[in-house]
Amino acid sequence: MTTKEKAVVLVSGGLDSATVLAMALAEGFECYALAFDYGQRHRAELDASRDISRALGCEAHKVITLDLRAIGGSALTDDSIEVPEEQAEGIPVTYVPARNTVFLSLALGWAEVLGANSIHIGVNAVDYSGYPDCRPEFIAAFEAVANLATQVGVEGQTMRIHTPLMSLTKAEIIQRGMALGLDYGETVSCYQASDNGLACGVCDSCRLRRDGFLAAGAADPTKYF
Amino acid sequence: MTTKEKAVVLVSGGLDSATVLAMALAEGFECYALAFDYGQRHRAELDASRDISRALGCEAHKVITLDLRAIGGSALTDDSIEVPEEQAEGIPVTYVPARNTVFLSLALGWAEVLGANSIHIGVNAVDYSGYPDCRPEFIAAFEAVANLATQVGVEGQTMRIHTPLMSLTKAEIIQRGMALGLDYGETVSCYQASDNGLACGVCDSCRLRRDGFLAAGAADPTKYF
Repeated sequence: MTTKEKAVVLVSGGLDSATVLAMALAEGFECYALAFDYGQRHRAELDASRDISRALGCEAHKVITLDLRAIGGSALTDDSIEVPEEQAEGIPVTYVPARNTVFLSLALGWAEVLGANSIHIGVNAVDYSGYPDCRPEFIAAFEAVANLATQVGVEGQTMRIHTPLMSLTKAEIIQRGMALGLDYGETVSCYQASDNGLACGVCDSCRLRRDGFLAAGAADPTKYF
Repeated sequence: MTTKEKAVVLVSGGLDSATVLAMALAEGFECYALAFDYGQRHRAELDASRDISRALGCEAHKVITLDLRAIGGSALTDDSIEVPEEQAEGIPVTYVPARNTVFLSLALGWAEVLGANSIHIGVNAVDYSGYPDCRPEFIAAFEAVANLATQVGVEGQTMRIHTPLMSLTKAEIIQRGMALGLDYGETVSCYQASDNGLACGVCDSCRLRRDGFLAAGAADPTKYF
């Protein structure tokens, strides 16, 4: 790219989205990091989102407050539903109803205000947790919505949803990030991390992450309880 | 319908969405009203949303808090942009970036938790203000997203987005509502209403509404400043 293109990057504070951010910056995008305070179980991932975005050199880091607890229906937004320690069949209770649709919609709104023509999100269809809104067909459908919903579409430009991790294994994601110099010790993936970012080591997200470092042949920098 | 089907209905407190609610109830849906406290200029429409939803007999009325002022970019969510008194060419400054995408996404999340298979929204492509996210092609694209984003889609059921006002003129909308006994004096359409619900009479939304009553041959029950 000769002049820098603006991009909105969803940066949750976890391993995947940190990698997406590092990749977008390496490709030369001017990055605007977006995170959500949606009533999740802990603040550690929001702190990680901010610290990583600053450290990597984003133009801005925005946190949008959004009360998904008003909807509930997930172990991540309803304290009466426990985070499971074993992988279940089908869609797990950690699935937050329509979360990626909501997050992408708000990213779309900010992209439109910024004049950014792309949104980068760390969804993945390989080592994923069985969430329906992480599949490539969902992303393709949302991209169609993005181009019909906004001024960008009316003006004949194109809004693109980038999902650079879609077909990578967790080990491959980790290898990409490490090649770009990313310090995964700063990221928080655990569904029930402590406020200072220590991981439980037993939830689905911790298990996928730990197995990823193992398969990547890399030391696991995660701090556990 | 023999057993009542659940439906999420977006009820902003304005004339259009009140009509949608009255129509959904008349069709026999068990209605769950949803409104958003998104940083709009006044609280009067939220009060109207609650009062209308209760009066018409919704099962529940939920207000989700969501800070769209964090994004800005619209006269409705940014105090530094004035609400215009004259109709402009193109997409007006009262357009809130990606608003209907965001609202439908949250409605989708709630529908999923409730086990509702339809969402009802008062978008309209006739007497509308030039917003890209009010067009039928946008709604069709969002319906595709809704069926890919959620458990409903995975389980082979169908989520439907109902837009009963899409091809009606404002006068026709008013006639439908009046035939269903709706009291439009309770609704607030003005972009800059006072906190007790008095309308300015000069913004786009007031103008469309006033012309609608005139064309419908009905008395305008709106309370102006």
